[in-house]
Amino acid sequence: MIKRALISVSEKRGLIEFAKELFQLGVEIISTGGTAKILREAGINVIDVSEYTGFPEIMDGRVKTLHPLIHGGILARRSNRNDIDAMQRLGIKPIDVVVVNLYPFEATIKKEDVTIEEAIENIDIGGPTLLRAAAKNYKDVIVIVDPDDYPSIIEALKKGEVSTEKRFELAKKVFSHTARYDALIADYFDKISSSAFKEDWTLPLKMVQTLRYGENPHQKAALYALNETPSLIDAEVLQGKEMSFNNYLDTHSAVLLASEFEQPVCVIVKHNNPCGVAIAEDPLDAYKKAFECDPVSAFGGIIAFNRVVDKTTAEEVIQTFYEVVIAPGFDEESLKIFSKKKNLRLLKFPALSDKIKPSGFDLKRIIGGFIVQQWDTLEDEFSQAKIVTKRKPTEDEWRALKFAWKVCKHVKSNAIVYAREDKTVGLGIGQTSRVFSAKIGAMHALSPLKGTVVASDGFFPFRDNIDVLAQNGVTAIIQPGGSVRDQEVIDAADQYGMAMVFTGIRHFRH
Amino acid sequence: MIKRALISVSEKRGLIEFAKELFQLGVEIISTGGTAKILREAGINVIDVSEYTGFPEIMDGRVKTLHPLIHGGILARRSNRNDIDAMQRLGIKPIDVVVVNLYPFEATIKKEDVTIEEAIENIDIGGPTLLRAAAKNYKDVIVIVDPDDYPSIIEALKKGEVSTEKRFELAKKVFSHTARYDALIADYFDKISSSAFKEDWTLPLKMVQTLRYGENPHQKAALYALNETPSLIDAEVLQGKEMSFNNYLDTHSAVLLASEFEQPVCVIVKHNNPCGVAIAEDPLDAYKKAFECDPVSAFGGIIAFNRVVDKTTAEEVIQTFYEVVIAPGFDEESLKIFSKKKNLRLLKFPALSDKIKPSGFDLKRIIGGFIVQQWDTLEDEFSQAKIVTKRKPTEDEWRALKFAWKVCKHVKSNAIVYAREDKTVGLGIGQTSRVFSAKIGAMHALSPLKGTVVASDGFFPFRDNIDVLAQNGVTAIIQPGGSVRDQEVIDAADQYGMAMVFTGIRHFRH
Repeated sequence: MIKRALISVSEKRGLIEFAKELFQLGVEIISTGGTAKILREAGINVIDVSEYTGFPEIMDGRVKTLHPLIHGGILARRSNRNDIDAMQRLGIKPIDVVVVNLYPFEATIKKEDVTIEEAIENIDIGGPTLLRAAAKNYKDVIVIVDPDDYPSIIEALKKGEVSTEKRFELAKKVFSHTARYDALIADYFDKISSSAFKEDWTLPLKMVQTLRYGENPHQKAALYALNETPSLIDAEVLQGKEMSFNNYLDTHSAVLLASEFEQPVCVIVKHNNPCGVAIAEDPLDAYKKAFECDPVSAFGGIIAFNRVVDKTTAEEVIQTFYEVVIAPGFDEESLKIFSKKKNLRLLKFPALSDKIKPSGFDLKRIIGGFIVQQWDTLEDEFSQAKIVTKRKPTEDEWRALKFAWKVCKHVKSNAIVYAREDKTVGLGIGQTSRVFSAKIGAMHALSPLKGTVVASDGFFPFRDNIDVLAQNGVTAIIQPGGSVRDQEVIDAADQYGMAMVFTGIRHFRH
Repeated sequence: MIKRALISVSEKRGLIEFAKELFQLGVEIISTGGTAKILREAGINVIDVSEYTGFPEIMDGRVKTLHPLIHGGILARRSNRNDIDAMQRLGIKPIDVVVVNLYPFEATIKKEDVTIEEAIENIDIGGPTLLRAAAKNYKDVIVIVDPDDYPSIIEALKKGEVSTEKRFELAKKVFSHTARYDALIADYFDKISSSAFKEDWTLPLKMVQTLRYGENPHQKAALYALNETPSLIDAEVLQGKEMSFNNYLDTHSAVLLASEFEQPVCVIVKHNNPCGVAIAEDPLDAYKKAFECDPVSAFGGIIAFNRVVDKTTAEEVIQTFYEVVIAPGFDEESLKIFSKKKNLRLLKFPALSDKIKPSGFDLKRIIGGFIVQQWDTLEDEFSQAKIVTKRKPTEDEWRALKFAWKVCKHVKSNAIVYAREDKTVGLGIGQTSRVFSAKIGAMHALSPLKGTVVASDGFFPFRDNIDVLAQNGVTAIIQPGGSVRDQEVIDAADQYGMAMVFTGIRHFRH
């Protein structure tokens, strides 16, 4: 039998209707400050918590419900003789329903120019205690943290009882809620101080939506946001079908690659690897050149631009079937053109117009946990670069090498990228031996390789790679260096009159 | 000036030394139940919290510190006139140090056969409230959740003051701790009820160690555990260098593939893709056949076995340089052999002797959050399989198809696996077009392809793939089916007299 409820809420949605129903069911309502005021104005009788405990609300509400008459009433096990005795002896009355939600810490820290003091004042102390106490004693207490649960609880109470299963679900919701609440606080404290790896690191994930399925149709999937900026999840979907799991994965990769370039670029991604990348004076030419690299693979791919897309580009793009086009923006006329392809997903992601630095850390899942690393972003890729061959790269070659290097970073290892200064020509992707990537990169090429340059994401273990590249007409190479056989590799390059640059930086991507 | 401390700890490590020092500094100590008893026995004067508040500890300690005289003393802002007035008016004395750690919920749920009641009784209510209140008011209160911080605080107090920076760090630790605490509770509640995607999902990561670096040397990295079984992180490192980031990534993949097989298997992984997989009567033969598939790529790879490794296998394995060997176990003699290669990492992972089902969900990082999916594990890969060609696979072909299919699931998409019934022959990995994977898989082959079978992780979009496979001598194919041009593909297979099976299941892996 439900006799007494404590209501103290920050979010007032649905409050009055809910309290009225409780009141009509004969439930005594205890309440605090703002909540009590609203309920009284709505004609509902409430007892102030200070009246109930005989202790005033003090320190701007910092201390109001932290009292044994409240918490004894919540935590007492109704089936435990000693607990019942203690209640009788000390004048503690059972509290059967606890309705609480918390100071809006998350909304507070999202405000621009929020001060640390303001954020900290919005850390709720009494609220989580009430929720956690009630959730711990869920067998005897109904705890409600989410206004969406008001109607079903009222309905159940009118019929008689709220089942133990339902009360368990409500308690589970509480601990999910308080865990997230404190994870956000810990994260905030962390952001305003250091960025080292923490011992206890509790990641506050918030579901944005379920997805149709995962990488494969038999895998259920969902999209979760962290509290980060920029966020691909915040990209505006202007038209098209719902984004799929693989769409998100590929778009993520396409975006990171596209944002490497200052010039207008077009990146086409398929199965999480680029199949064509080009820079040009405008998005249209960039797209045409990226497409020409591998028109077969491009079909069904993901396209990323780092410039606003215009009409002529849109007209060209819709000649082929794509899953997603993402760009910092789309002009009015391009939107009209794209609207002819109803299923094509168009994503507006303003962050794409600058170099993107993802927040937090990169995490990779392993059985039992995560391996966590800094994102692979560097201020300057070429600060340690040195020419190791007799011949120096020409200016044209340098431009091509820099272009190829940036692409190479975003190709799965072992990665070998054949390129000219404005476009990829052949992509050697994801092989278990480097020389094989060198061979298949050349096989991929649809235009002549003579005079191209090559970037390799890791060093060359043997000179065989150089032989393959030379045979294909490559004139300059960029790679990390660091092999025990570097000298053999350099000698081979010198023998062919090639120019070679060591970056001192590796870019494995798996 | 520090006058008063509240100490209530579950973990008693370092407690007496710390309290003695405080006591000698003239600090008044308030304490609860078990903590008070220990301190008194050590000759330290303490005031019971019940004496201090005038309210007894009740309900087996469920209610003891939840009192305004305690929380007012913690939360009062010493620089706020109204807070000071309230303290004076109500007889609240400031509490300057809060030393609390929590009921051991994590240890409790790790015990075998723990009951839900026991777990729930170990949810601490008063403790987190004390910690959170003190952390909120860190400018005025020193809060200690970790006994490791005792010495530095005593040192600072002896010198005079604990700096605001230090108090901020302590507060940060508190919220990290309470976030993890409630995340573990939420996770426990979740595990004993449902496995659907949760709205608020707070992942409790615990750092196990920092790693030398991430995927690349310029990326800092660390290893984090979730509360899961089985866990690769719990694998016992029997010898060798410290595991690297890429070692973990590759070992994870090797383990999942190896655990697919009931027969003795050997898997060699390089750059997160298999470069050789074979089954045999014993680990030695399995290793030899896996190695023969691609000896060049195998160099520097990761090896997984699903059987205890013996001496003869060890002798064969150490002929080549590997990074990691992981197995359910190693016999004594094999350990002696392996000890000759001091740097080789040997990992004992008993879970490998059965099919591994990772806990929780698979998460993939994108800018701003995660895409989350069920792990790609199925009870039966072939329950929906149907033969679509005129010719049925022979028994030999069926065995080969099933073998190839299991491997294919663990190769990056687009994946084409050429195999016989006991080993891989050619691996077409990670290409942006499927027909290209078909071509390079054949190029990889060191032994004849005539009479091999092929598995494809996705459907064939066009018949050109079948033409390539037929030219290479392939006699049977296993693939998901589901292309709009399935009939064209089936007709092509019939034309060549091939047998083809549609699984109805796709296995993209990116």
